[in-house]
Amino acid sequence: MDIATILGIVSAFGLVSLAMVTGGGLQMFVNIPSLLIVMGGTMGASLVNFPLREMLGVVGVLKNAFLQRVTSARDLIPQIVELAKQARKEGLLSLEALANQAPDPLLGKGLKLAVDGYEPQSIEKILATEIDYLSERHQKGADLFQAMGTFAPAMGLIGTIIGLVQMLQSMEDPSTIGPAMAVALLTTFYGAVLANILFLPLAGKLRNRSSEEFLVKSIIIEGVLSITAGDNPRVIEHKLQAFLSPRMRENL
Amino acid sequence: MDIATILGIVSAFGLVSLAMVTGGGLQMFVNIPSLLIVMGGTMGASLVNFPLREMLGVVGVLKNAFLQRVTSARDLIPQIVELAKQARKEGLLSLEALANQAPDPLLGKGLKLAVDGYEPQSIEKILATEIDYLSERHQKGADLFQAMGTFAPAMGLIGTIIGLVQMLQSMEDPSTIGPAMAVALLTTFYGAVLANILFLPLAGKLRNRSSEEFLVKSIIIEGVLSITAGDNPRVIEHKLQAFLSPRMRENL
Amino acid sequence: MDIATILGIVSAFGLVSLAMVTGGGLQMFVNIPSLLIVMGGTMGASLVNFPLREMLGVVGVLKNAFLQRVTSARDLIPQIVELAKQARKEGLLSLEALANQAPDPLLGKGLKLAVDGYEPQSIEKILATEIDYLSERHQKGADLFQAMGTFAPAMGLIGTIIGLVQMLQSMEDPSTIGPAMAVALLTTFYGAVLANILFLPLAGKLRNRSSEEFLVKSIIIEGVLSITAGDNPRVIEHKLQAFLSPRMRENL
Amino acid sequence: MDIATILGIVSAFGLVSLAMVTGGGLQMFVNIPSLLIVMGGTMGASLVNFPLREMLGVVGVLKNAFLQRVTSARDLIPQIVELAKQARKEGLLSLEALANQAPDPLLGKGLKLAVDGYEPQSIEKILATEIDYLSERHQKGADLFQAMGTFAPAMGLIGTIIGLVQMLQSMEDPSTIGPAMAVALLTTFYGAVLANILFLPLAGKLRNRSSEEFLVKSIIIEGVLSITAGDNPRVIEHKLQAFLSPRMRENL
Amino acid sequence: MDIATILGIVSAFGLVSLAMVTGGGLQMFVNIPSLLIVMGGTMGASLVNFPLREMLGVVGVLKNAFLQRVTSARDLIPQIVELAKQARKEGLLSLEALANQAPDPLLGKGLKLAVDGYEPQSIEKILATEIDYLSERHQKGADLFQAMGTFAPAMGLIGTIIGLVQMLQSMEDPSTIGPAMAVALLTTFYGAVLANILFLPLAGKLRNRSSEEFLVKSIIIEGVLSITAGDNPRVIEHKLQAFLSPRMRENL
Repeated sequence: MDIATILGIVSAFGLVSLAMVTGGGLQMFVNIPSLLIVMGGTMGASLVNFPLREMLGVVGVLKNAFLQRVTSARDLIPQIVELAKQARKEGLLSLEALANQAPDPLLGKGLKLAVDGYEPQSIEKILATEIDYLSERHQKGADLFQAMGTFAPAMGLIGTIIGLVQMLQSMEDPSTIGPAMAVALLTTFYGAVLANILFLPLAGKLRNRSSEEFLVKSIIIEGVLSITAGDNPRVIEHKLQAFLSPRMRENL
Repeated sequence: MDIATILGIVSAFGLVSLAMVTGGGLQMFVNIPSLLIVMGGTMGASLVNFPLREMLGVVGVLKNAFLQRVTSARDLIPQIVELAKQARKEGLLSLEALANQAPDPLLGKGLKLAVDGYEPQSIEKILATEIDYLSERHQKGADLFQAMGTFAPAMGLIGTIIGLVQMLQSMEDPSTIGPAMAVALLTTFYGAVLANILFLPLAGKLRNRSSEEFLVKSIIIEGVLSITAGDNPRVIEHKLQAFLSPRMRENL
Repeated sequence: MDIATILGIVSAFGLVSLAMVTGGGLQMFVNIPSLLIVMGGTMGASLVNFPLREMLGVVGVLKNAFLQRVTSARDLIPQIVELAKQARKEGLLSLEALANQAPDPLLGKGLKLAVDGYEPQSIEKILATEIDYLSERHQKGADLFQAMGTFAPAMGLIGTIIGLVQMLQSMEDPSTIGPAMAVALLTTFYGAVLANILFLPLAGKLRNRSSEEFLVKSIIIEGVLSITAGDNPRVIEHKLQAFLSPRMRENL
Repeated sequence: MDIATILGIVSAFGLVSLAMVTGGGLQMFVNIPSLLIVMGGTMGASLVNFPLREMLGVVGVLKNAFLQRVTSARDLIPQIVELAKQARKEGLLSLEALANQAPDPLLGKGLKLAVDGYEPQSIEKILATEIDYLSERHQKGADLFQAMGTFAPAMGLIGTIIGLVQMLQSMEDPSTIGPAMAVALLTTFYGAVLANILFLPLAGKLRNRSSEEFLVKSIIIEGVLSITAGDNPRVIEHKLQAFLSPRMRENL
Repeated sequence: MDIATILGIVSAFGLVSLAMVTGGGLQMFVNIPSLLIVMGGTMGASLVNFPLREMLGVVGVLKNAFLQRVTSARDLIPQIVELAKQARKEGLLSLEALANQAPDPLLGKGLKLAVDGYEPQSIEKILATEIDYLSERHQKGADLFQAMGTFAPAMGLIGTIIGLVQMLQSMEDPSTIGPAMAVALLTTFYGAVLANILFLPLAGKLRNRSSEEFLVKSIIIEGVLSITAGDNPRVIEHKLQAFLSPRMRENL
């Protein structure tokens, strides 16, 4: 799945580069000051908008999104059903050892709470709070990239206006007008490329990851509560499969 | 209904092509590199944004939307009323055989749960979860096309800026300016056409399908619960018809 | 009220036409192929987006919005209070005859349910479902016009780019540039006029109608439930008047 | 507070006028047909979108927003606490006389309902309905100005395209191109000024007024219910002050 | 954290200035009347939109956002757990002295209410009202900057149109066209810079502060209610840590 992301970035940048090369060479699209104003300005505006801590955490968030695997919803359901069977046979307390090897930290936490004898309402409340704030925290990473995706084109526009004003103030030599405008357009170009190939799709990716994780966490909460309630394992399986799409179920 | 979609795409593309032909021929609107940058860039940005699995599933989603018939709400109500009558006469268990031939898988599942003696609250919860996640999954297909509908014009703009910069850097021969700008505009053209005739309307179509299915599924849940509760078939009919528009009811 | 809509369309189109005539004649703004591409393209994109049935139903929806009168909230309250008085004096069953002459079909349906001895919860549920799906169905008509209001300018832009590309490819004779650009701009013009004078305001009108109807239906539900509960007519009057604006109440 | 609104309109228009005057005189910005098309077109589109009644009520809504004072939340709390003290000492019925002099009609109504012996649930329901529909009605005024704020620039664009088409069709005399384009731009100018200095800020003002009133009405409901419940006046004071900002409380 | 904001503003403005200086000097970007029309117009439109009181309060809101520290969620939890331990050992009343030294005013208020013997429901309602209206008040500061961030570019556009109209009306001397357009573009430049480097990021910052504070206040309410209920301190710790991100918990 992460290969897709990298493939996407590489192919999109590749096609854009190809278009630049075939039309007369890359060098006319390279302009360090223009790049500086767009990237630096976007960083600056983001620093005003977001806490420093969050800006620095971006690398971690991205690494997470690319490398860490989301616990698979399909793998999870049989495991929860197994836990339910064992709880029925040998009692809730027998899950204590398994809680530590749970494939998902939230599942582990939920089982520990159940083993510790917390009431179902308390378990539900604690796990639900965890999900609420988890999705809120994930949202923040997406918000950061979304904001960068709106600041970048704006900085591109600002850079282009600066270039246009400078060009318009000194038009004595008509032959310089074209190249000057070309350079002025580069900041708009950088802004559009950064926003549409990098920032906005990455914001979308983080939002997607967040909703996948939300599904998994919802299954876990439902499962832990059902185990605690001593539900029939077959009933639990039915309940949890309702979270999956028909295609996912067929492959089960 | 699917004829409408195909008719829409054909007529819109036809009119656009007509305008291109009558104004001097199609060939000046064909530019493979421009098409590559718009389509490839859109694909690339989407690959970053969405899991590979979802991108590959797009063909299935579309085939579904065009070929699969949504169970008709109008046909469904008399069938549910029939089931309610039989349940009253011969008991809930008599529905077991009918559950397998139910015109809609959700109806079949609901009936089986009822026959198996699940409590009404459990049935409602299982079926409601199914609907919740069904509409969320449908939403994703629409999201994908919506995103492609915003990336395509952005890629068109990027391509046009590349063309403009190249043109502005080499304006020695004024006679080349016009054609160069014409070519630069083609990516914007491709982006606008793909977005507004294909991606955005298809996103809308998927959203519409989703809300139609939601109506049908809501009727089924209400119906199954009423049957389980042993409601009077006439009362059930009243309740379910409230979901329909007056026009749909007249034709009943 | 419908006079206002027609007045609005006529005056806006009139002013636009006046501006066209005084600046040199209407004929330079008439271009059948341009009109075809904008209207046909908008239709085409809408056919992809919406079911054929809904597209064909548009005429009915508009006729409805212009000709059918919304039951007036102000007239309704005294009628409901009258019904409540009679129900108190002569019993709920005495409303049976009046149910058939109710000024609003939902009121009639609610009274019939009450007379038939349905429980308050069932009545509330049936009527509430009816409102929920009523407003959803109304929303769809507004959605259709809203979508046409975004497709029309997009088609205008596509047409203008086609015209510009054709013009830029053949600039040998400078005297043709002006008129060619003028023609290219016409699709943008048609798109803007159709969207802003027709489609978007009509979408707004349908949304407004929907919220007016929602108010009336809410009053009816509250009223029927109060009658069923045997509330004091004066209390009912108080409750229902809370739905009205102070100005509407003064005129009562 | 209303001085601010007038100050804002005057200063913004003043600065714009100054810029027009210093650059060569106001007369080149005055063009009656251009003004007509923007204002008339905006009115026309709004007439299609909104009921005539609402359009005519706009003057009243604005007069209200500028002249009528919102009951101050800070003044209200001590008054409610006083009422609570009296109700405790001399009974609920002793509030009857005070109900008629209540500083806010909703407070008067709530007290009357309490004195008349309505049950707390009924009182809450009636007052809550009143607030719901109050804020919905206020929203409509804001919606109208918001819509005018989107129609005005659109009409400006339509006018400018008309002007451009007319100019492009008759470019024999190059010296007329500049002035013709200047005139064509005027409708865009009028649309931008009307939308951004008048319509959109006024829509914002109405939304702000609505949320201020909502705060006051929420305090009143909470207060009336607490009085009816016979709460300790000191407890009521605590509860109601929670609605205020710390700064407002200090000044109490 | 506030250093980040200042760093962001300084670096973004610095990069923009650098681009201006290297391209021929700052002086061609300085135009007092243009600055006046953008800033004055933005102020004017905001004065229409927002109450004077709020406009004047902006300085205080910003000072707050930059200087006042948000109570740290991580520091708060051990303190609440300590309070819970003491309440269990020495009774709720023993918290009276500590209430006055609470690190957060809301915690102090909550403890006082608990000590005063308010019922849990009352405490929850009072504290929840406080949070509701707190976040609503914070939202207003963000709304103000957001509105200024949309008015500023609009004023920039208005200024540029004024400049263009003046230039187009007097094009006798072609050598003045360039500089006149350059000056006309300056208002657009000012509008874009103010909006994207100052107003919009500051609106974002205020929204972020608001959500941080919301987290802290939610922890406090949950904590106070748990203390009042006499929960086990270890259970309370578990419950409150669910609000934190895993990274925050590790550092605990």
